[in-house]
Amino acid sequence: MTAALGVARVTVTPIAFPDPPLLNSAGIHQPWALRAVVQVHAADGSVGLGETYGDAPHLELLGRAAAALRGLDVFDLNGLRERVAAAVGVVDAPDRHGLTGPSSAAKTLARVVSPFEVALLDLQGHATGRPVVDLLGGRVRDRVPFSGYLFYKWAAHPGAEPDAYGEALDPAGIVDQARRMVQRYGFRSLKLKGGVFAPDEEIAAVRALRAAFPEHPLRLDPNCAWTVETSIRVAAETDGLLEYLEDPTPGLAGMAEVAAKAPMPLATNMCVVEFGDLPEAVARDSVQVVLSDHHYWGGLTESARLATICRTWGLGLSMHSNSHLGISLAAMVHLGAATPNLTYDVDTHTPWQLGADVLADPLAFDGGAVAVPDAPGLGVTLDPDALARMHADYLACGIRERDDTGYLRRFQPGYEKKRPRW
Amino acid sequence: MTAALGVARVTVTPIAFPDPPLLNSAGIHQPWALRAVVQVHAADGSVGLGETYGDAPHLELLGRAAAALRGLDVFDLNGLRERVAAAVGVVDAPDRHGLTGPSSAAKTLARVVSPFEVALLDLQGHATGRPVVDLLGGRVRDRVPFSGYLFYKWAAHPGAEPDAYGEALDPAGIVDQARRMVQRYGFRSLKLKGGVFAPDEEIAAVRALRAAFPEHPLRLDPNCAWTVETSIRVAAETDGLLEYLEDPTPGLAGMAEVAAKAPMPLATNMCVVEFGDLPEAVARDSVQVVLSDHHYWGGLTESARLATICRTWGLGLSMHSNSHLGISLAAMVHLGAATPNLTYDVDTHTPWQLGADVLADPLAFDGGAVAVPDAPGLGVTLDPDALARMHADYLACGIRERDDTGYLRRFQPGYEKKRPRW
Ligand SMILES: [Mg+2]
Ligand SMILES: [Mg+2]
Repeated sequence: MTAALGVARVTVTPIAFPDPPLLNSAGIHQPWALRAVVQVHAADGSVGLGETYGDAPHLELLGRAAAALRGLDVFDLNGLRERVAAAVGVVDAPDRHGLTGPSSAAKTLARVVSPFEVALLDLQGHATGRPVVDLLGGRVRDRVPFSGYLFYKWAAHPGAEPDAYGEALDPAGIVDQARRMVQRYGFRSLKLKGGVFAPDEEIAAVRALRAAFPEHPLRLDPNCAWTVETSIRVAAETDGLLEYLEDPTPGLAGMAEVAAKAPMPLATNMCVVEFGDLPEAVARDSVQVVLSDHHYWGGLTESARLATICRTWGLGLSMHSNSHLGISLAAMVHLGAATPNLTYDVDTHTPWQLGADVLADPLAFDGGAVAVPDAPGLGVTLDPDALARMHADYLACGIRERDDTGYLRRFQPGYEKKRPRW
Repeated sequence: MTAALGVARVTVTPIAFPDPPLLNSAGIHQPWALRAVVQVHAADGSVGLGETYGDAPHLELLGRAAAALRGLDVFDLNGLRERVAAAVGVVDAPDRHGLTGPSSAAKTLARVVSPFEVALLDLQGHATGRPVVDLLGGRVRDRVPFSGYLFYKWAAHPGAEPDAYGEALDPAGIVDQARRMVQRYGFRSLKLKGGVFAPDEEIAAVRALRAAFPEHPLRLDPNCAWTVETSIRVAAETDGLLEYLEDPTPGLAGMAEVAAKAPMPLATNMCVVEFGDLPEAVARDSVQVVLSDHHYWGGLTESARLATICRTWGLGLSMHSNSHLGISLAAMVHLGAATPNLTYDVDTHTPWQLGADVLADPLAFDGGAVAVPDAPGLGVTLDPDALARMHADYLACGIRERDDTGYLRRFQPGYEKKRPRW
């Protein structure tokens, strides 16, 4: 007989941290990014950590889930899914910004399960003395490579001081931003968040990046800002320049039309966003690269199973990121290290958080990569003072739901989110 | 820092145990069934168990793999696959009987990896104090239901004493066998191994089973003995009688033709036998139920990932079995208990081994199901005397490769394996 290790209590702490004015096809980042830190306390006093979105509708569901976990064995991931499903019910809670694609009840549930699953894996690691990567099948690499994530941006939020990166509203600004990011972090692949300016301006930025970084693989992600026709044109004009083109147009049907004519693979974190999207995506050959994201695919073990699907159907695999802190980064590193068919460098927003973190000792980038922690669990430790400070910032900041469109409209009253726009 | 637990040494013991004269589309079971017991000894003295095929070509590959595992951390399943792949190389070692479908280098490799993967999971369980089901995501059921596996058979191997089940060569014999098996084990679903007699005789046996067991779900598995036309005819004539029809005809194309017209789902352990088969099977809708088998899908964690694919594509899922002993049964029970979408009762040959086992305390059937062990690892213990006895039987029995066709030909010199035959 083995002794179960039960969950004693769970806390969900909403936090906020400063976010630069980054532009995308939905608008612009607000001055504060929201997240939630999940702490699952086991009966033996150990604590497992998870990190997820901090939007109010999501927090409400997290609270319902958290209240249902008392006594759950820390190894019982199937039981976690059952309990959360029962606690949450059939709810479809879409993101207002829509930057992770359509929503559904299944995706909403997976998004709520995720931080608790990560926290249980962290606890399993503490209980067994094993890093999470071992619990996911063992490390196939010691360092997980990330990409440099470039954004068009304003110099500062209106009325605030400029941030360290300054303005980037044209090809020269993007190249300058890339230079600083590569110099500081050592990233190899570079991704430009597009869908902000007319396609020809973004093509010019890609060409400028190629000229400045002849050896760096490049990506462009307009977040569904283009029609099928525009996407096909941009794909033709960027032939030979991009390792992949990400979500040029909305929907599996449109993506399939583009994919049939594009010379490069299409990647997505917007049209394949849950397991239920895969059959149609495969049947249509809509995408050639899936950007997984454990925050909305239901956690690390489900993401590992998505990787097997990608391997089986010959799809490339990388990871998507939203604004995040170090718990999520650690989770991504453990998953990436245990995934043989991680075929592209992983996205991260870490540079844009400008050093903010909830961790006592954040994981560091070296040569564009993060070394896989050897310590048990995720291998990271919460800084309770930072958590308290960021929770106070959450309470004070006034933002309760990410709204890139509404924020941009304050300064450009005529702005509308349109997908496709061009 | 965590301490790795390394593999100290590995033993692979070929064994043989008595097997009744069971008929199938390849011939008849020989008097001895071959298996191999894998023991992985960890540096701390604990031992992990695995069970696999005992055919000579497979044993040779197991030996190569076993020699490559020293120092491997017991959690490093990715490392296991890498080491075994390097040790085995690109080898395609088909089964002579072909009852598990076509072979390939990928399937051969998965088959060699499997018993070591199970043994490492057993060791992980011992190291963490957790049953294997916990390491696979936690139990969704406490008892795993099995099906009663009915065979046409001779009363005895020529020159030997009759076994306890006696002859079954017609519908009455099959019904009688089913009655005894249901009485003794409590099975609910009943599976008839067909492909032995002309289809009309086997249809008559199905009808006789339905009459005798009005509430028991029934299955028929002719192991690819039929043409597409015959399969469609049998499917029409057994409409309403079968929960699924298993491998009526060879190949994904033929199965798709049958599936398009059959009123019941088609199941397979012969045309979807490795991950590489899934894309075509899904594209053609060749099968509606996958019978997984951790012995040739690469182990328990890979089989769990296959289950996610089945869930994603809406395929039913159960498990296939060949002649096996209690280590394999325990592995199947842990996997089945951790698999939410196990949609049909699992196949087992256990009743046909007539009590033979390598375990000190074999798992028992109750109401057709096996309770999931609570003890760490697989929760079973090797009986070293039984192992030694069965190894002596292996040495003495003279059989080195399963050959149902060659054995039947001894008594029916004109017999030929033909798929399809009707
Ligand atoms: Mg994207
Ligand atoms: Mg079969």
